[in-house]
Amino acid sequence: MIETRLTRAFGLEHPVILAPMAGVAGGALAAAVSRAGGLGLIGGGYGDADWIAGQFAAAGNAPVGCGFITWKLAGAPEVLDAVLARRPRAVFLSFGEVEPFAERVRAAGVPLICQVQTRAAAAVAVEAGAEVIVAQGGEAGGHGASRATMTLVPEVADLLAGQSPDTLLVAAGGIADGRGLAAALMLGADGVVLGTRLWASAEALVPEGQARAALAATGDQTLRTRSVDVVRGLDWPAPWDIRVLGNDFTDRWHSDLDGLRRAGPGEAARWQQGFAEGDARVGNPVVGEAVGLIADRRPAGEIIAGLTAEAAALLDGGWRT
Amino acid sequence: MIETRLTRAFGLEHPVILAPMAGVAGGALAAAVSRAGGLGLIGGGYGDADWIAGQFAAAGNAPVGCGFITWKLAGAPEVLDAVLARRPRAVFLSFGEVEPFAERVRAAGVPLICQVQTRAAAAVAVEAGAEVIVAQGGEAGGHGASRATMTLVPEVADLLAGQSPDTLLVAAGGIADGRGLAAALMLGADGVVLGTRLWASAEALVPEGQARAALAATGDQTLRTRSVDVVRGLDWPAPWDIRVLGNDFTDRWHSDLDGLRRAGPGEAARWQQGFAEGDARVGNPVVGEAVGLIADRRPAGEIIAGLTAEAAALLDGGWRT
Repeated sequence: MIETRLTRAFGLEHPVILAPMAGVAGGALAAAVSRAGGLGLIGGGYGDADWIAGQFAAAGNAPVGCGFITWKLAGAPEVLDAVLARRPRAVFLSFGEVEPFAERVRAAGVPLICQVQTRAAAAVAVEAGAEVIVAQGGEAGGHGASRATMTLVPEVADLLAGQSPDTLLVAAGGIADGRGLAAALMLGADGVVLGTRLWASAEALVPEGQARAALAATGDQTLRTRSVDVVRGLDWPAPWDIRVLGNDFTDRWHSDLDGLRRAGPGEAARWQQGFAEGDARVGNPVVGEAVGLIADRRPAGEIIAGLTAEAAALLDGGWRT
Repeated sequence: MIETRLTRAFGLEHPVILAPMAGVAGGALAAAVSRAGGLGLIGGGYGDADWIAGQFAAAGNAPVGCGFITWKLAGAPEVLDAVLARRPRAVFLSFGEVEPFAERVRAAGVPLICQVQTRAAAAVAVEAGAEVIVAQGGEAGGHGASRATMTLVPEVADLLAGQSPDTLLVAAGGIADGRGLAAALMLGADGVVLGTRLWASAEALVPEGQARAALAATGDQTLRTRSVDVVRGLDWPAPWDIRVLGNDFTDRWHSDLDGLRRAGPGEAARWQQGFAEGDARVGNPVVGEAVGLIADRRPAGEIIAGLTAEAAALLDGGWRT
């Protein structure tokens, strides 16, 4: 058992948070993570109210929270209100200005977790009153930016130590096993967010073909790109792009976004169909560099039990070589 | 005292290697690191035989090794022979095919350290017979590629465990304090390479103006770019680019390499003069993301003593929050 300020603050057994991966972290996965002693978060993503309601129902009575893509929430703030009315375990905001939403989350008595990709954004999130800052490195799968976990976490730790020592710090990006969890604690984090490792869990809403391709890949095979947002017609603002498993699509379009925009709806339909059907040669699985550390798709509870036991053994001297 | 397979193999007091930063890690710095209990390496870089000879002289009788940019060494292999004749503590090769040089290093009875930036390159370096693999993440300053330390180190650790368990593994990129060293050990490394932290040491061949600018910067202010190689007329092959502190030069040219090539020798002369004079607004200091963790320029021996003591305390339970 690894006890930290995060486990105490949220009453967790393990200092582990499920990344609220849009469309992937549904109610079943969030509930499994919470039942395993972590903090489960539904991936509210772009704010589809019906989908979110369905996933809260799927989570049953497990205490789960919800995450949002912040810049998208600005266009539909009522989605946040509907989630707050459910008294979620936490609200997790990433990719945009939190200030317009922070007060409503606080007023609802719900803990606010803000994920940031730079030191500068961490300072802003502290100002906005986040209880937890997640420092996300660019090795993470899905949306993010360029800074690495290895430097961003200790730099934000120093910022918090000087300006807001009671704010908790969680590391995200590149953490998929006990080694990553133990390393994050050494860097000054109170816990970790797991994305890719739980993307490859039995409960994740991931087509089997995508999972198979990802489990066979090494970490060399992912890349950060804008092409996967362009083909989906998603207007992601700078500085964010998305890390995915590379394939023929990214080989063709990663460096030719103008060409992709001109390619028209056929290319978009093809990508979407491949993605939905789990054909990883067509639609890119959304995974991070840590995919090279993952060899199986197992129930989330087993993953968390194994990973935290491995970390505890390392912290107890098992790192010695 | 942190003892690992690396300290035992090289007879070190600390599992710390000086990054052989071209033109920056001279004989005085390499000697200081070796005297402090680490492994000092002269930054042989592009293979200037006279400069290297002068730096070995400056190192005096301290046991130091030498590093090279491998693709450049291919054009002047006699430079390697001249260094091997000095019986260096180790030869460190990065950025290119090591196979043409590995046999001569081995025949000279000198330990071969190969730095790699991908899992695929690690497999090749193992085949070539490297005694030590350095897994370098893209958060590192200077030349490198895109993978992050947080995932590359454990992935290479798994590769070595399966294929060559006696090969040592060292982490590079983003490590500038005891937190980074302790984290690297948790990830499965036997030690670390320090670049930026020792770039900002008293003995480094770094103009004071550059150091001042870097110490004032946060980790948000560096970037990986090709512009700094293009302006210097250096034909670096893919996939390598260089991480530097951003400034007006990179703001202007990072995304317009063709324009930079057309800009002619005036732009190159301006950059080189600014660099030599330590004007960081003109010539970019070559530092990594970890610059945001560094607040002072001190003697290398003090840096290593402080950093290793901090790591030892963390490994002894000091990580608890």
